[in-house]
Amino acid sequence: MLDLTQDVGALTAAIVDIESVSGNEKVLADAVEETLRRLPHLTVDRSGETVVARTNIGRPERVLIAGHLDTVPLAGNLPSRVEGDLLYGCGTSDMKAGVAVALKLAALLPEPNRDVTYVFYDCEEVEAERNGLTRVSRDHADWLAADFAVLMEPTDGVIEGGCQGTLRAEITTRGKRAHSARSWLGVNAIHAVEPILATLNAYEARRPVVDGLEYHEGLNAVTVHGGVAGNVIPDQAVVTVNYRFAPDLSLAEAESHVRELFDGFEVAFTDGAPAARPGLTHPVAAAFVAAVGGTPRAKLGWTDVARFSALGVPAVNYGPGDPNLAHQQGEYASLSQIRDSEIAMLNWLSPGA
Amino acid sequence: MLDLTQDVGALTAAIVDIESVSGNEKVLADAVEETLRRLPHLTVDRSGETVVARTNIGRPERVLIAGHLDTVPLAGNLPSRVEGDLLYGCGTSDMKAGVAVALKLAALLPEPNRDVTYVFYDCEEVEAERNGLTRVSRDHADWLAADFAVLMEPTDGVIEGGCQGTLRAEITTRGKRAHSARSWLGVNAIHAVEPILATLNAYEARRPVVDGLEYHEGLNAVTVHGGVAGNVIPDQAVVTVNYRFAPDLSLAEAESHVRELFDGFEVAFTDGAPAARPGLTHPVAAAFVAAVGGTPRAKLGWTDVARFSALGVPAVNYGPGDPNLAHQQGEYASLSQIRDSEIAMLNWLSPGA
Repeated sequence: MLDLTQDVGALTAAIVDIESVSGNEKVLADAVEETLRRLPHLTVDRSGETVVARTNIGRPERVLIAGHLDTVPLAGNLPSRVEGDLLYGCGTSDMKAGVAVALKLAALLPEPNRDVTYVFYDCEEVEAERNGLTRVSRDHADWLAADFAVLMEPTDGVIEGGCQGTLRAEITTRGKRAHSARSWLGVNAIHAVEPILATLNAYEARRPVVDGLEYHEGLNAVTVHGGVAGNVIPDQAVVTVNYRFAPDLSLAEAESHVRELFDGFEVAFTDGAPAARPGLTHPVAAAFVAAVGGTPRAKLGWTDVARFSALGVPAVNYGPGDPNLAHQQGEYASLSQIRDSEIAMLNWLSPGA
Repeated sequence: MLDLTQDVGALTAAIVDIESVSGNEKVLADAVEETLRRLPHLTVDRSGETVVARTNIGRPERVLIAGHLDTVPLAGNLPSRVEGDLLYGCGTSDMKAGVAVALKLAALLPEPNRDVTYVFYDCEEVEAERNGLTRVSRDHADWLAADFAVLMEPTDGVIEGGCQGTLRAEITTRGKRAHSARSWLGVNAIHAVEPILATLNAYEARRPVVDGLEYHEGLNAVTVHGGVAGNVIPDQAVVTVNYRFAPDLSLAEAESHVRELFDGFEVAFTDGAPAARPGLTHPVAAAFVAAVGGTPRAKLGWTDVARFSALGVPAVNYGPGDPNLAHQQGEYASLSQIRDSEIAMLNWLSPGA
């Protein structure tokens, strides 16, 4: 059981002190479930170590507030400790402060101005297949239905909209082997990489504005490999290119763009994940931006908001905590920033707002 | 004991039938040593499985005739067999036909017109450190003293002069790691490889004429490697370049040339072997060319002639057998070509010549 009547900072510390490294979330998930089941205005579901709770008061809009329960492995940084305004410990910033804010909202808002779905999920810090959102979106997609979602990852209290997509392509050059003492009898596949690198060096990355936010693309070689032996003209080389693309392109459009750039080369796509539009033009999102304040910025890395986007739910990242501290031994969160987030969210969802 | 009175073709077959895969030359080396020790006009020395025999009749010039006793591993191709003019079997072409010719000369020329040193050595087909010539040139360099050397490797009866040198250099580019979602915070070391490949693609290989033979250089990337992970801007890439250079350049000059070509890059030389001049302008070599006939050609690959060159002894490859058959299961040598070689060498070294 968690005491939801305590201050959000003290609640954060209590949650941080329940160790929940990925795969070990059961104790914390049990505490969250038990705590939420005592709130009569919520319907509670559970899948594995993921807990989903919903108000059902017939509001015309439904918003979803999500946070992951797991942390990266401990680094001698538990239990938590307070120094002045700062709460130190594993998971303070990423993202138990956000989880604490969401739990406070669940307790304080029996009749929010929009119906709310709270999602507390497991295994965000490990491979996608284990991620609780992957499982729930496959087995219980209806639990995630909403008009707008806020993923309370640490963003320093700034709204980060959407996320860029990513794809990787292997570009292969072919040649003909020969002994390097008679190199003119062969065709050098490594030398044939030059125009690929020339294309990459000449590439001007787009910085498109999508739904009011400026994104920043990137097209880069991330690996290159080629060669047979020190005395053989190589017959193959492979450049792996990573394209990070803005959410005005679908994954298919991004792939076409890469194919066109490397027209005439052998191009094979090895993985890809679509971008997510920020969705800030939707009225419920606009209301969120107005309530929270500040200037939203584009999210450049790929995040779980793309999973909501794939389900047709516009989503943003927004939460207390400095994202640059995530996964660091000295991770901390500002107690006043956690309280500011709680107040902003209450402003957005309180019945009088 | 080997019967040196038999025809050179039959002698070749007898030697082929004494298996002598690298490291297993003892039986054959013993037979060669015992046979040569019965020839009163020769002084015989031995080091490991290498046998060196010399005439000492005070001629103003001394020539050296060398052949390796070992073969590549068997491939179901022993014992030897004759089909028409062709003698099949492991080592027929590479290079027991040449060894048989040298043994016939040792027997037939008690008073050659030049003093002759015969060298039959081990472990030519394996790493240089095991090569009998490496050992003898280190421990008994005086045994190899001569004005000119003929290495009786298979050349189809054509004189192949000198050999090209070889060096390998690692050219490293450096960058700065960053997450590929924010690639502009990093510096891509793979993209920095472009000018290296541009230099290689623009390079015009020299074809210099040295001592009357045309060589053909080559400068090639043989391997390229770079990259950290699929989502990281790489901070290092390495291109390994192989330069095959003509014998008008020393190894130091060849290294300087590569340094100049890649000025501004980090260049590290990982291995190198000097070229050998053909030495065909020396009077004793000219007499050899006149006796053997045909048009000498340049040797492009690196061979043991460079070891003689390093000792100050001009050297050529010349012997019966098709070099393209070396190391092949179906290896054979032409019996008439073996006899032609024997006659040519006798023409060169007989007292009346």
